[in-house]
Amino acid sequence: MEWQKALRRICSDRKSSAFVLTKKSVRLLARMAKSGIGATKLVKVAEKIFNAHPAMASVWHIAQITHKLAGSPKNLISALEQFLADMEAHAKASISHASDWLPEGKILTHSFSSLVFQSLICASQKEKRFEVICTASFPGGEGILLARELVKAGIKVNLVSDLQSFVWLTQCQAMLIGADAWCEDGVVHKVGTRILALFSRQWGLPVWSIGTSEKRLPVRWSERMKGEAPLLVRDAISQDRTLYDLTDWELITGVIDEFGVHRL
Amino acid sequence: MEWQKALRRICSDRKSSAFVLTKKSVRLLARMAKSGIGATKLVKVAEKIFNAHPAMASVWHIAQITHKLAGSPKNLISALEQFLADMEAHAKASISHASDWLPEGKILTHSFSSLVFQSLICASQKEKRFEVICTASFPGGEGILLARELVKAGIKVNLVSDLQSFVWLTQCQAMLIGADAWCEDGVVHKVGTRILALFSRQWGLPVWSIGTSEKRLPVRWSERMKGEAPLLVRDAISQDRTLYDLTDWELITGVIDEFGVHRL
Repeated sequence: MEWQKALRRICSDRKSSAFVLTKKSVRLLARMAKSGIGATKLVKVAEKIFNAHPAMASVWHIAQITHKLAGSPKNLISALEQFLADMEAHAKASISHASDWLPEGKILTHSFSSLVFQSLICASQKEKRFEVICTASFPGGEGILLARELVKAGIKVNLVSDLQSFVWLTQCQAMLIGADAWCEDGVVHKVGTRILALFSRQWGLPVWSIGTSEKRLPVRWSERMKGEAPLLVRDAISQDRTLYDLTDWELITGVIDEFGVHRL
Repeated sequence: MEWQKALRRICSDRKSSAFVLTKKSVRLLARMAKSGIGATKLVKVAEKIFNAHPAMASVWHIAQITHKLAGSPKNLISALEQFLADMEAHAKASISHASDWLPEGKILTHSFSSLVFQSLICASQKEKRFEVICTASFPGGEGILLARELVKAGIKVNLVSDLQSFVWLTQCQAMLIGADAWCEDGVVHKVGTRILALFSRQWGLPVWSIGTSEKRLPVRWSERMKGEAPLLVRDAISQDRTLYDLTDWELITGVIDEFGVHRL
């Protein structure tokens, strides 16, 4: 069964951004609904995806939509497709706002957010001059991937180890991150974001998070949102698998969404 | 020429501990002196090693000895061998003091110090109960090697990414590191030590450094002591190559050397 394979892939994917996984989830659910798969199964699949990614707000919204409309495949497909279209339109608007807002100089980021990446590309096209300090972002090392993509796009980059970044942030104009979720207590994002934000604010560096309203998750942070990080090494050594942490709202200077730039 | 190959290896070695590199340097210089190589050459070689490892105190002492005694090969060899023998005896004494001092519970360490490793082994033989939180310690990842060696020795280990460690340190009884040098301004050690020590002390966690008197470097910290870290990735991406940083004495709770445990 093709869709079961796709489901397993989505559930075990620890590399792709929330944005990419949301697209894949919508496509999968729409395909399943089109092929006549029943409501109970659809709801289960949507819940399974959210349980595999409990820190991804957009996947929570998809599960909500599926729960509400699974009995009416046509409406479900249309609502899911509308959700995706909205999310894409919102992303474009957020990227445009972020690229206008982006200060020149050095920008610190952590992990790989599609929205951060596209905002930087867009700011570069607007001829802003900046350099991106990318943390390697272990476990996972998504910052290395981001650095590679930015270099390909002709953007000035400095790749630093996660602990080296504390020296670099003192030279930065802003820390800009994405968000896996904007939950009730703060921003859910790659592990390490909290300590970087804490130190940034102590230093006086503003910390901004870019997202869209689909990132809003109307629940409180819980331990299960920590997710499951890839292993640092394959050896039989006990390892911390925490993938996400919570950066309290009080550490966040502001957010950028499709409506604009909001200082908190 | 065999010694030139050995010299190149010592100079380019970014993985071995100061302890291991010091032994190799002494062996090389003694071998050269025995084979009748002239004083000027010997001094140059000793300086070359120190210039390649400007943060390693013991290598500085070796260069001092070579400078003083290069004209008298017999005396040089005997002084170098005495230095090595002293350093080994001092290491044993330090390890014994550290293993007596080591608190039970969770111990945070960063990078791979031979003295820390052996102190942990010794404490374990004394039936102390503890778990070692090893930071991965990028760039280089020496903490992964340490975790592997500790597991082999039957010691309980938790390997954590460099940024995950800030959560773990709040559960620890002490942070224990080695030292590349105890210089005038503080402890020179793997990059990231400073921010970990800063946060540890803010949290109330004591920070201890184990070494021997051969680690004392009577000079001030300078930019050249930053060393040259291995690359995070081989791509043509600009990367921070800082290998060492300075942890000011005011962040260090105390040091352990061959004379005992000294609270500062």
